[in-house]
Amino acid sequence: MRQERHEPQAGRINFFFEPKSVALIGVPRRTGRASFNILETLVNCGYPGELYPVNPNADSILGLKAYPKIESLPHGIELALIMVPRDMVLNAIDSCAKMGIKAATIVSDGFAEAGSEGRALQEQVVNRARAGGIRLVGPNSLGSINNFQPFSSSFLPPSPIKAPIAMVSQSGGFFEGFFDFVASKGIDLGNMCDVDFADILEYLEVDPDTRLIFLHIEGLNQGRRFLKVAKRVSQKKPILVLKTGRTAPAARAIASHSGSLAGQDKLYDVAFQYAGIIRVENSDELGDVAKALLYLPPLKGNRVGIITPTGGCAIMAVDALDKEGLEPAQLSPKTIDALKNYFPIWAPPRNPVDMLAAGMSHGYKNIYKACLEALLDDPQMDAIICIAGWPTIKTIQDISAGKSKPVVVWMQGRWTGESLSWIEKLDYKTAYPTPERAARALSVLRRYGNRKDKYE
Amino acid sequence: MRQERHEPQAGRINFFFEPKSVALIGVPRRTGRASFNILETLVNCGYPGELYPVNPNADSILGLKAYPKIESLPHGIELALIMVPRDMVLNAIDSCAKMGIKAATIVSDGFAEAGSEGRALQEQVVNRARAGGIRLVGPNSLGSINNFQPFSSSFLPPSPIKAPIAMVSQSGGFFEGFFDFVASKGIDLGNMCDVDFADILEYLEVDPDTRLIFLHIEGLNQGRRFLKVAKRVSQKKPILVLKTGRTAPAARAIASHSGSLAGQDKLYDVAFQYAGIIRVENSDELGDVAKALLYLPPLKGNRVGIITPTGGCAIMAVDALDKEGLEPAQLSPKTIDALKNYFPIWAPPRNPVDMLAAGMSHGYKNIYKACLEALLDDPQMDAIICIAGWPTIKTIQDISAGKSKPVVVWMQGRWTGESLSWIEKLDYKTAYPTPERAARALSVLRRYGNRKDKYE
Repeated sequence: MRQERHEPQAGRINFFFEPKSVALIGVPRRTGRASFNILETLVNCGYPGELYPVNPNADSILGLKAYPKIESLPHGIELALIMVPRDMVLNAIDSCAKMGIKAATIVSDGFAEAGSEGRALQEQVVNRARAGGIRLVGPNSLGSINNFQPFSSSFLPPSPIKAPIAMVSQSGGFFEGFFDFVASKGIDLGNMCDVDFADILEYLEVDPDTRLIFLHIEGLNQGRRFLKVAKRVSQKKPILVLKTGRTAPAARAIASHSGSLAGQDKLYDVAFQYAGIIRVENSDELGDVAKALLYLPPLKGNRVGIITPTGGCAIMAVDALDKEGLEPAQLSPKTIDALKNYFPIWAPPRNPVDMLAAGMSHGYKNIYKACLEALLDDPQMDAIICIAGWPTIKTIQDISAGKSKPVVVWMQGRWTGESLSWIEKLDYKTAYPTPERAARALSVLRRYGNRKDKYE
Repeated sequence: MRQERHEPQAGRINFFFEPKSVALIGVPRRTGRASFNILETLVNCGYPGELYPVNPNADSILGLKAYPKIESLPHGIELALIMVPRDMVLNAIDSCAKMGIKAATIVSDGFAEAGSEGRALQEQVVNRARAGGIRLVGPNSLGSINNFQPFSSSFLPPSPIKAPIAMVSQSGGFFEGFFDFVASKGIDLGNMCDVDFADILEYLEVDPDTRLIFLHIEGLNQGRRFLKVAKRVSQKKPILVLKTGRTAPAARAIASHSGSLAGQDKLYDVAFQYAGIIRVENSDELGDVAKALLYLPPLKGNRVGIITPTGGCAIMAVDALDKEGLEPAQLSPKTIDALKNYFPIWAPPRNPVDMLAAGMSHGYKNIYKACLEALLDDPQMDAIICIAGWPTIKTIQDISAGKSKPVVVWMQGRWTGESLSWIEKLDYKTAYPTPERAARALSVLRRYGNRKDKYE
């Protein structure tokens, strides 16, 4: 769509994530509940930098001095958030350039996503920003969020969660996260008229807060540069991608969302594979795989042990392993020796290890502990799936912490507010709601296990 | 494996779910935390019938008179729970017969699941029970649970949840449920030496507490009778099945769990289809589909409206619909008229309805409400997917209650203890964690929609 730029631009991308000073151009006076006031979010979250609201109709907003126009601002503010109606954006860019602002997020919409008139306007904005030496995120973007600073130009406050996960998206909606996956640093590229995936990847490549990168892609424009950068970065940090707009009706919807061309889905498969990017099929898998890659040690083989209080669930786990190319391990003689005294003579320990009867006689937690310790020590075992209700997770967490084999939990039963709060309090990361998803996570860990050694 | 029985036996199956009197044969004296004492569960849960503990070494347990042997019990107790070691089971059955007990659950294990010796013992037990006129559940069974009475012979207390869902399982592990699916009436058939799926289906067919039946099947023995009964019952109440042991290693594991033969997976597909049973692929889908069938009106067409605060998420929903054979609807002129004044001129309302900008100007909840009401009234719309954070669910619940079109929510963002507790308090049933799962639920509702008219 436009010419490839070759100069490395990572330098100024940090202004979008950790600006020392921010001008809020066109910030509304209205504050309080449901006002979606970015200034209020920044004030309330404890953003440590300087804030410069610009609004011609106010002397102060939220106790901060308000500036009547961009030209009244001090020189050299790092980031401008532009929220004025689309017809005023062009002038705002010119004024920013004049005042030495080098990075701007255009929150305003009505550009390439809104038909030919908006598209023409967007092109003018880009040209003017380039002439003025300004890097642009957006338009039609909620900008960025950074729980580490903290900073947020979205309507969401930064969360106290500090996970080493960064998100690069074409939608602000994903700042909310998925099921049990939330990025702690993220950017919404919106219509992506200037700053794009490759620029952000170059920043994240050396960002000490980031160990895993999630991309939400609707469409790419600078394909060649993206693949080159992604291939390099994926050697250092795992990159997961959720490519949306895979079907024809969704591709049409994208045209009026970010204005991107969705492209051919099969081509993306090939490109992602070339670049070493891990493609996830859906939003459940995204969180499942991210947790495994971040919080589990490498998986060095296919042999999996299963500990269970119920034979029926163990069979589901065996089905799930088989579908993912993993297999139930055989217990070594040493493990059988360690456990056999707890088990009835007619049902000696075997894998899956059904510990219920032994647990009823010898204490549930004692036996769960004995089984997990024995399996962690067993050289015929590469990973372990623990089937457990939520009260057992603390035991599993204590025993598996720091061990060199991946342990995942199928947290069996209904997931309630109570059980989820328990996991949150424990900060236990690798519980899965079904055996299929636990097995899938192990399988991705197996495929990318060797690379993980390199990552660390 | 054994001969088909032809006499209808539904009469006595009610003893397993709602017994008026229960003998606990071999109940331990040990009570309190982690003692897994069934008597204690029954006393604590408020079971309203009579309890008769049998233990030769105690005069009383938990304040209840204990009987030294079965022969000391009053005549005609409805249900015996047999927990003695396997070698004592045969004598216990004889004694039960003598005392006029007509139904027994054998909790003890070490039978067909434990090799040839156990299998031979199990055959003797069955023969002796038949001779004595006793219907048997098990062996190797946790028996049943019934939140409506309440009653439980499993180690789990009955829950206060009274959902019209019954479960027939070959494992006690499933009493804990899956993710957000828990049956309020359930039975673990264990080794299924006598009472089997068909018997329970005949009981549930006329059970007023049950509107949907979930089967967990490892293997069937009386195949023909099962199919005949299931075909009849599925006309009245939806039957969902999770067939486990689909893969070779899992089929081997089943032999040492319930002692069943897992059979050929493809044959089960054909059989389930013949009997009108809905096969679910995994445990996520089980809950997703059950909720849709129970709590949503029929889906009369393929056209789906989407309401969203984020374009990016809407595109994921469109992808998901397309994969399930559903399609984004076109808004009718009436709907566009009703909404257009809220929307910018360059982005008139269309489906997916991206309500964020309008919501920011006119009040988030107001606009969400206006959009949902317009789509519910729109004749070009058969169902609606609402993409929403958890605070919006109350609004959606209020507007969609009692309407004739299915409304499902993709509850976007991280599912936390706080958000789950909120849904539990609202008792909102049809929230899904991903667009794929919301679309899948609608798709099953579409396929079985006509039948649902019949169910009600």
